[in-house]
Amino acid sequence: MAGTGTDGTASLPVGVIGGVGPQATAYFLDMVVRLTDAARDQDHLDLLVYDHATIPDRTAFILGTSTEDPGPVMARDAQRLERFGVSFLVVPCNTAHHFTDQVVAAVDVPVLSIIDETVAESQRRVDGLRRVGLLATSGTLHARVYDSAFEASGVEVVRPDEADQAAVMEIIYEQVKAGRPVDLPRFTGVMDRLRAAGAQVIVLGCTELSIIAADHGLLEADRSLVDSLDVLARRTIERAGHRVRA
Amino acid sequence: MAGTGTDGTASLPVGVIGGVGPQATAYFLDMVVRLTDAARDQDHLDLLVYDHATIPDRTAFILGTSTEDPGPVMARDAQRLERFGVSFLVVPCNTAHHFTDQVVAAVDVPVLSIIDETVAESQRRVDGLRRVGLLATSGTLHARVYDSAFEASGVEVVRPDEADQAAVMEIIYEQVKAGRPVDLPRFTGVMDRLRAAGAQVIVLGCTELSIIAADHGLLEADRSLVDSLDVLARRTIERAGHRVRA
Repeated sequence: MAGTGTDGTASLPVGVIGGVGPQATAYFLDMVVRLTDAARDQDHLDLLVYDHATIPDRTAFILGTSTEDPGPVMARDAQRLERFGVSFLVVPCNTAHHFTDQVVAAVDVPVLSIIDETVAESQRRVDGLRRVGLLATSGTLHARVYDSAFEASGVEVVRPDEADQAAVMEIIYEQVKAGRPVDLPRFTGVMDRLRAAGAQVIVLGCTELSIIAADHGLLEADRSLVDSLDVLARRTIERAGHRVRA
Repeated sequence: MAGTGTDGTASLPVGVIGGVGPQATAYFLDMVVRLTDAARDQDHLDLLVYDHATIPDRTAFILGTSTEDPGPVMARDAQRLERFGVSFLVVPCNTAHHFTDQVVAAVDVPVLSIIDETVAESQRRVDGLRRVGLLATSGTLHARVYDSAFEASGVEVVRPDEADQAAVMEIIYEQVKAGRPVDLPRFTGVMDRLRAAGAQVIVLGCTELSIIAADHGLLEADRSLVDSLDVLARRTIERAGHRVRA
């Protein structure tokens, strides 16, 4: 899509609506850099990142515990990035996908979907995939962000039970987003129970969970774990006309 | 300076001229997030990061091995960020400071100097500081980016000898910027010889060297090591009206 240039003018940057959350955005940039096949600065992607941490909480609005709608804020951010000049847009946040229609409608540039790309990658991992386990915010689950995409391909989505989902939310909000240490055994315990329920692939469908995977090297050890942030980083590199490092 | 807001509209983001290099920019964002006293996404700084990797190489232009001038590119980037709306600008790159006058002249918003803040922090570390060791690109050394700032305070700057400076450049360009493993003993050897030459403080005056310090936890172990990227992250948080995590 966008080409590369060494004169600083040849190509438009990729637009990133970030800050949702801020740590996930920093990890996304780090992943893009590490995964790009590059030997010098100028081989890397140009990006324009609006790290907009103060966007209202996505899950709180979806669940009705807040009346602050992040949708119009993200749509306006998309327009401002488009006015600056970007080749396409990405949003490194799964829950935000619930508001994607508003973002897509607000701009002319394409929006790369973290959900569609993660679903496609899950299907590449297991031939004839039938059942995935989904770890995500309660907002993403409530809005059925992944369910419709998977069900369109005849794949069943298995969710954690109520106690396990409460654990996932505590890990996301009280640990990762709060900058506190993560209870890793509790996290892997939830994954074990999804596997016991027949999940052939586990989708990390929240970018705060991607941070845990990156910090503990979980992806290298387990090909059945599909991390949405890792997938988005790889597809962003390719769509920007660059190559993923082997 | 800029306040915080939860409605996504209250404050202007901090403008970051990034991509010089791209890995350093990702680390800068990560440092800003980790060092901000925050318990939820909305407690974090809003940032607008132009991760402009294709800006021409700074050292190559300063040393005359390239005729591609990064100065006008960075000045134009600063103007574009100002037009978007930013409270102040930072450039997480030491060598780029050689071109700062062009950036400052191009905009009305303030530009926070990584050099001035690192010099001030070095003086806070040692009472009556008289001699610092400087690890930086040959471009930064040739342009005397740090020398004038330190000499104005009567502090002498000690540089690596020719062989050690060649090692520093190889670590920056052939290892960090190339995404390859770093020869840590070679790096710490250069620091040891600067200390033997009387350096009371070692300044990591290249953001690629900051990456090594972060990856190997060097700062926690050694208070006489002053990392320019860490200093810039802390001052950015404070100037944006936030608090550094204790």
